[in-house]
Amino acid sequence: MSDKYILPEFEDIKNASVRIKEYIHRTPVLTSQSINELTGAHIFFKCENFQKAGAFKARGAINAVLQLSSEDLEKGVATHSSGNHAAALAMAAKIAGAQAHIVMPENAPKIKVAAVKQYGGIITFCEPTLEDRESVLKDVSNRTGAVFIPPYNHPHIIAGQGTAALELIVETKYLDIIMAPVGGGGLLSGTAIASKHLSSNITVIGAEPEQADDAYQSFKSGQLIPAKNPITIADGLKTSLGTLTFEAIQKFTDEIYTVSESAISDAMRMIWERMKIIVEPSCAVPLAAIFTYPEYFRGKKTGIILSGGNVDLHRLPWHQ
Amino acid sequence: MSDKYILPEFEDIKNASVRIKEYIHRTPVLTSQSINELTGAHIFFKCENFQKAGAFKARGAINAVLQLSSEDLEKGVATHSSGNHAAALAMAAKIAGAQAHIVMPENAPKIKVAAVKQYGGIITFCEPTLEDRESVLKDVSNRTGAVFIPPYNHPHIIAGQGTAALELIVETKYLDIIMAPVGGGGLLSGTAIASKHLSSNITVIGAEPEQADDAYQSFKSGQLIPAKNPITIADGLKTSLGTLTFEAIQKFTDEIYTVSESAISDAMRMIWERMKIIVEPSCAVPLAAIFTYPEYFRGKKTGIILSGGNVDLHRLPWHQ
Repeated sequence: MSDKYILPEFEDIKNASVRIKEYIHRTPVLTSQSINELTGAHIFFKCENFQKAGAFKARGAINAVLQLSSEDLEKGVATHSSGNHAAALAMAAKIAGAQAHIVMPENAPKIKVAAVKQYGGIITFCEPTLEDRESVLKDVSNRTGAVFIPPYNHPHIIAGQGTAALELIVETKYLDIIMAPVGGGGLLSGTAIASKHLSSNITVIGAEPEQADDAYQSFKSGQLIPAKNPITIADGLKTSLGTLTFEAIQKFTDEIYTVSESAISDAMRMIWERMKIIVEPSCAVPLAAIFTYPEYFRGKKTGIILSGGNVDLHRLPWHQ
Repeated sequence: MSDKYILPEFEDIKNASVRIKEYIHRTPVLTSQSINELTGAHIFFKCENFQKAGAFKARGAINAVLQLSSEDLEKGVATHSSGNHAAALAMAAKIAGAQAHIVMPENAPKIKVAAVKQYGGIITFCEPTLEDRESVLKDVSNRTGAVFIPPYNHPHIIAGQGTAALELIVETKYLDIIMAPVGGGGLLSGTAIASKHLSSNITVIGAEPEQADDAYQSFKSGQLIPAKNPITIADGLKTSLGTLTFEAIQKFTDEIYTVSESAISDAMRMIWERMKIIVEPSCAVPLAAIFTYPEYFRGKKTGIILSGGNVDLHRLPWHQ
């Protein structure tokens, strides 16, 4: 894959939607009367926590792998990921009959390691630093010839992630606001491109932990500013924007809201208790933003992409 | 309400279904490919954990309250319950514009106390013994004239609970087996009456904790044998059968399986991890029975009523 990527367009998202359709779940859109009463907003939750491999990441990974040549598939695919992209790529590779090589930090949650193994992915552990991840990945790629499938900074990944917003907007017909959490920015980029095409009046908002606010800093300054050792319970959002996702967010996102750790934990718990569904801390960041800036959302038809449901049930925020 | 109850018939369940329709959720039926692969069964989960007030109990309570006279409604309704019937009755009373008086043991889970308060129920706390519950309830009823709505041993309650099985069977078209957990027996009774009417070939199975096996003992001996201080994580299933539910279970249930505490905890955790939904320990008892007696369920289209999702998130079985 070339380093000179250009942003996907809505057409690419529509094509991705057709390409991946038979391999993913069309996830339900849920509402909660009691959360609507508490927030004053009308919230539509797109439940990617019910997605295959437990997160929206399946969409991008499958869309990327299905576009590889048979020569590439023979060599396999590779990535580094502490989280959901790892399992998603392992699953995507299995669908395409290819081998997946996954570089994971030693401290990755057990549930995510187990998920990669379940799909037959070959794991190489590394130190939990971006430097070591990249260097170990380079070793693996050199040894195997496997094609690197990045977790977010790639047009095929972004186009795949945008299919969740496409489904949400088609199903709800009209939204005033759409929100996605922002880590590396793949989900927010795809969401923004799909949403602005489908509805010129929609406001696209990214939601980010205060303690991992690289997207907010980059968005406000107009310069790509990477996160520096972010510490947040929203472990899926520690990664920094890439060049391509930064470009998409600058062009198609209206605002980024940041929220405190306690707001994330409270919102996560509220989703668990009121909706009886299991979501990751990262999922709860948009709802936390609604509780932090309620006046902005009052009376607004607001879509939220619930990004994933892979939680270590031994390490819940309210037990720490 | 008279003490001389007779069992509801299918017609009563059908009427209940119409009566309560606008006040309850038509809950979804979910399947899990990975749990099907692990068990070899084809399981259809009726998600009453998503029901109003978080449990199937809303069905029976609303069905009972909506059949009261306006004189009775003026005096209010009363019950004793450590759990979901309490919130369900408070909600049902609110719908009917009546006052609910709820007697709860002091050690009732906080989340269940909060739910009763949320619906405007008036709580009187008592000692956590059946004797004290009943004596405090008598005081409350004498003082207020409120009508006692029992948690399970009443035809209107049983008919209401049977509507979940009715919906499940209509939606899945055909089932080989249907299962419900059994505590007081209201859910299993309604499930059995509905199921045997709709499909003469269906096998109706109750699932019960080994450590609260009064329904099993009663079913096998043909005599109503109450539970003696049962200790189980499935807190909704500690109650003993009533005369009416015992009769229904003797007539319309084919088998009762009992399961260990660790099987319940494992099954609950599997539902959380694989299906990303929150269920109470009581809910997991039927799936635990499938894992305990797998040969019985292999290849069988099996419906399970997931009874509720009200869990104290600070007291999960795998944290103890």
